[in-house]
This record gives sequence, structure tokens and C-alpha cells, in this order.
Amino acid sequence: MRTIRLLLEYDGAGYSGWQAQANGASVQETLETAVRRVTGEAVRLAASGRTDAGVHALGQVAAFETAHDLRAERFAAALNAHLPADIAVLSSGAAPAGFHPRRSARSKTYRYRILNRPARSALLCGRAYHLVPPLDLDAMREAGRHLVGRHDFRAFTPAASKRSGYRREIFSLQVSRSGDEVVVEVCGSGFLQYMVRILAGTLIEVGRGRLPAGEIPGILASRDRERAGPTALACGLYLVSVDYGESGPFA
Amino acid sequence: MRTIRLLLEYDGAGYSGWQAQANGASVQETLETAVRRVTGEAVRLAASGRTDAGVHALGQVAAFETAHDLRAERFAAALNAHLPADIAVLSSGAAPAGFHPRRSARSKTYRYRILNRPARSALLCGRAYHLVPPLDLDAMREAGRHLVGRHDFRAFTPAASKRSGYRREIFSLQVSRSGDEVVVEVCGSGFLQYMVRILAGTLIEVGRGRLPAGEIPGILASRDRERAGPTALACGLYLVSVDYGESGPFA
Repeated sequence: MRTIRLLLEYDGAGYSGWQAQANGASVQETLETAVRRVTGEAVRLAASGRTDAGVHALGQVAAFETAHDLRAERFAAALNAHLPADIAVLSSGAAPAGFHPRRSARSKTYRYRILNRPARSALLCGRAYHLVPPLDLDAMREAGRHLVGRHDFRAFTPAASKRSGYRREIFSLQVSRSGDEVVVEVCGSGFLQYMVRILAGTLIEVGRGRLPAGEIPGILASRDRERAGPTALACGLYLVSVDYGESGPFA
Repeated sequence: MRTIRLLLEYDGAGYSGWQAQANGASVQETLETAVRRVTGEAVRLAASGRTDAGVHALGQVAAFETAHDLRAERFAAALNAHLPADIAVLSSGAAPAGFHPRRSARSKTYRYRILNRPARSALLCGRAYHLVPPLDLDAMREAGRHLVGRHDFRAFTPAASKRSGYRREIFSLQVSRSGDEVVVEVCGSGFLQYMVRILAGTLIEVGRGRLPAGEIPGILASRDRERAGPTALACGLYLVSVDYGESGPFA
């Protein structure tokens, strides 16, 4: 058995999320069906993490074990032939021994796209969150600086996380504007459930002037989900990349 | 009666093009239905030009006459409430006397997006033309320099154009790369039917090394459609903007 790693892009709009759910098709099941068509094997795909319903990926990483003798690099094209247009395998390769997409990850980068203008967009429908009130980027950046570093992010997730605790490290958080679009890009050691969307929702509250940036340290210290901002809509969120360091499969 | 001008964005994938056709819904009819719902009037929309089936717009301009007393700036929000997600009115306003979206136009800018990498894209499906062989941008730029200026573009349209002839002026043509994407942006006085797609198809042939850039002047001089490149797929094409000069409705 070999481990094959996949680099994946998907439009999350048509899926119930990465993981198999009772309602609707999942990205995972759709890929597992494609692997079965190529290899004849019923495999279980592991990913760097679950993405919620409607969340997109530019660089999700998944892996599976196979006894099939297709060259590792050829799986990308073979799988693409069996996948719908809204899921694409960007590349495939042999994974190093012991590689696991989630456990081997050093950091992950997410992007949250906000279309910040009066009119909705035809081409960004389902691809960005549309917000009319103009955002104050300086205030959002100030709030972002309070979030960077190693913190207890209990206030930024609704879910109990007994196993791995609530401490995570945010390595960088950038807020930029390009035309009508405001983009929040955050890189961290790992993220709790809904954490990126709650970070985005909190920064949006700050950018709208409804929450002072200086309250972020107090929100972190409170460990109270009620004090952070709302969970921003899934359609604006993109898993950009997963980093595995120099010994990883993309080095 | 007043003339209202609209600035429009649309995803062309779901439409038979701007103009009403026997097969499938057109952008024009969809907008005319929305105007009728807002004003109760059966109007005919004029546009800066027809876009083909599958072609997108970031800044199409259209206009209609109405006796309705809604403030001109309010039509955008009123129409958006009656439009599907893939058509958006970005703004509306009163048009100057004698304004016509096509006849008053000074120049139009189009963009052609090429995803130039081995793997297809999930998120750019229907939004860019996917081409695997790497493009030579220097060659494409050299070809572009031969196209800029006032020329007889008979070789770059399949259609007889008795009324307005074949002479058009290209003011600028830029070829740029951003990540995996190659973008051709062309601004001109006006374009013949399929002309932008044939310009893009010809530049792609040059970029793939299948047509020397130095042959462009000979192709122009030949006035022979057979000698120019193929018509590039509609999905990569965007009408970016229409310029009406300082006396126009967007000044």
C-alpha cells in the first residue's frame, strides 16, 4: 500500500462541506467515488481539515492509501476525468512515510473575501460576502494585531473541544483592499471549528464601527463566545493552502 | 419620457447572449422583464453592443426610456430585486439628452482570461479558458503591437459588415500574467462580430508558437478570415467597460 496525496480546488457552493453528511453530497464522498472508479478500491480520504458547507478551497490537501500501480503523479488527471466541474485535483504525488494531511500540517492559510460596495455582484455571487457599509481597514488591522500570537480562542468557537484544547497560534493576519473587495488573510497553526468565520465576523464588526478594536484582548480573555462577532457567511471563505514544511510532500 | 442608463454586471454562462434569441433566455429579455415589473411598462433596452452566449460583463451599459417617476438612481436597487443572481445592476442614473449606449460610445475595453496550467480549475470553470501548453507572453506582446492602431479587421470577423465597414482602431492591447492566469486586455473604438475572440484566438496561436508574431501584418493585409486564429471560447471573455467621454453619463 502506498499513500497518495492530492492538492484540491473546489467550489463549496454545491456541497454539504468536506465531510460526509446526512444531507447533500460532500466533497469527500465525491472524491472517494472518483478514486473507486479509478482504482476499483473503496478508500477513505483524509483531509487537512473539514471545510463547512459552502466554503471553498484553493489548496486543500487530502490523502488515501492504495494498492493500485498507477504512477502517483497520474492520479490527478485520472481523478479529474471522474469528477464534476466544481472539484479539481491540481496535482497528485507520493506522500512520505507517515504523512497525514491533518496531523503533519505546520500551518494553514485562509482567505475571507468581502465585496464592500452598494451593489451586489453577479460574478461573485456565492464567491464573496456582500456588505454595503464601507469598512474601516485601519480599525480592522488594529483588531488583527491583537489576534496575532498564541491565544486561547475559546471565545471564537461555539464548539466544546475537549481533546485539543483552545490554544492556537495565529502567525499572521492581513487586511487588504483591492478595488471593491476587502480581503482578510490569516495564517495559523490550526483553527477551531468556525474560528476563521468568527474571526472574520468580528473584524467586520470592528470595520463597521460597531466594536472597538481595543476590545479584542478582553474578548479573548473572557473565553465567552457571546462577546465575539457573528459567524461570517461561508461563501466568502477559502482554504488557500496548507504548509507541511521542508519534509512534507510539497517541498 | 426620460432615458435611464444602467451599468450592468452579468455571468453570461446561463444566457444565449445579450440579444433575444430563439433558444434560451437572453440578458436583454431578463432585464426588460425586470423593468416591466418595476415600471409596468414594456420597454426595449439598448446596449453598448451585443455580447455572445457565455460572454460575461463587468461594465455593460444599457438604457431605456420610461415615464415612471422613480428617481433615476433608485432603479438599480429596484431592478436588482427582480433580477436573478447572475445579473446585477451596479448603478443607474439619468442619461444626457440624445444618449445612446452604442452610438455615444467612444471606446470599449474587453478582457480575455486564460488559465494557463496543467490542471483545470473548479472555481474558474466557465469564467476563464483553460489552456495547458505554456504561453510565450513576449511573442503575444509582439503580435499585439502589430494589432494596435487603425486597421482593416476583415480577417478578424466571419461576418459581412456592409453598413459600418471593417476599419476599427485598437487604442491599446496588453498581455499580462498573474499567477497561473494570462490576461489579454484590449481597448478599441469598436469591435466587429467575434473580433475580440478571434484576436484572443490568434494571440493564443502566437503564444503557443504555432504562428509567428511577424505574420500579423500579412494577416491584416490579406483580409482573409482563414488566416487569422480560431475564435477563442466565449467563457474567457469579459466586457470590462464602455467609455463615453466627459459629456457621457458616467463622467
